[in-house]
Amino acid sequence: MRRDPTTLPGRPCSLAAALEVVGDRWALLAVREVMFGNHQFSQIARNTGAPRDRLAARLKTLVEAGVLERRPAGQPGRFGDGYHLTDAGRELSPVMRALLTWGDRWAVTAPPMRMRHHDHPFTPRTVCDTCGEPVRDGDVTREMLAPQWTMEGHSDG
Amino acid sequence: MRRDPTTLPGRPCSLAAALEVVGDRWALLAVREVMFGNHQFSQIARNTGAPRDRLAARLKTLVEAGVLERRPAGQPGRFGDGYHLTDAGRELSPVMRALLTWGDRWAVTAPPMRMRHHDHPFTPRTVCDTCGEPVRDGDVTREMLAPQWTMEGHSDG
Repeated sequence: MRRDPTTLPGRPCSLAAALEVVGDRWALLAVREVMFGNHQFSQIARNTGAPRDRLAARLKTLVEAGVLERRPAGQPGRFGDGYHLTDAGRELSPVMRALLTWGDRWAVTAPPMRMRHHDHPFTPRTVCDTCGEPVRDGDVTREMLAPQWTMEGHSDG
Repeated sequence: MRRDPTTLPGRPCSLAAALEVVGDRWALLAVREVMFGNHQFSQIARNTGAPRDRLAARLKTLVEAGVLERRPAGQPGRFGDGYHLTDAGRELSPVMRALLTWGDRWAVTAPPMRMRHHDHPFTPRTVCDTCGEPVRDGDVTREMLAPQWTMEGHSDG
């Protein structure tokens, strides 16, 4: 379900389009639980602490947007039913890792979870996929392609 | 403003704590505009398309959480007043780049903005800061440190 970014309110921007789908606390926590292997509504509700009606609405949006898919129950043992990640859902991993790392640094008194890469502690670092160099903020520039928009905002000219 | 993660609803998690601060569409779009160099409320409102009352509430939360700081007006030319990033705000860059990249891939019909690193197109890649290797999802494991919680959820044992 892709959106024409020029129909968004404000600046045409893929970040804004992404946030229309996942720009909600309960949506991303639901994705977290499915990533952790919890596929049932009741597990997701308990582990996120989300109000059930809001969680149900967010899961519906995530399925419609193609981030999650819902597999029907009915097989013996119900194995494989519930909510599962699509390719688009799996590709949210960098977003989740970046938010978790930021939260560890700035939002909690002490990290309640530890990430490991193979046999050592994991901290993500962003590099440029083209040249492989570590990214410093000042080295990345952005350019608006949408007509009439500049980095500063809408141009009346 | 750091939070004891065991007081969160659901799983104690830095991602959840992060989302209490920035888990909102208008909050992250406001941070985007400040990153782009737009510091005034009126600029942020126009370029995000956010309803002004909700935007004002989000900006207040971001200032209280230490993501933005508000500098007073009054200097000649008003230079430097308005909303500015703190260190915590600047460190949201990896989150913003990850969301923008995901949006380009999955949420828009055509990317309306282009990122460049020095003189070439920029796509972020995540590597492990310890060993430098590119990260594949299966190589990163997570371990709950909070008492009574496992990756599956709350343990009654």
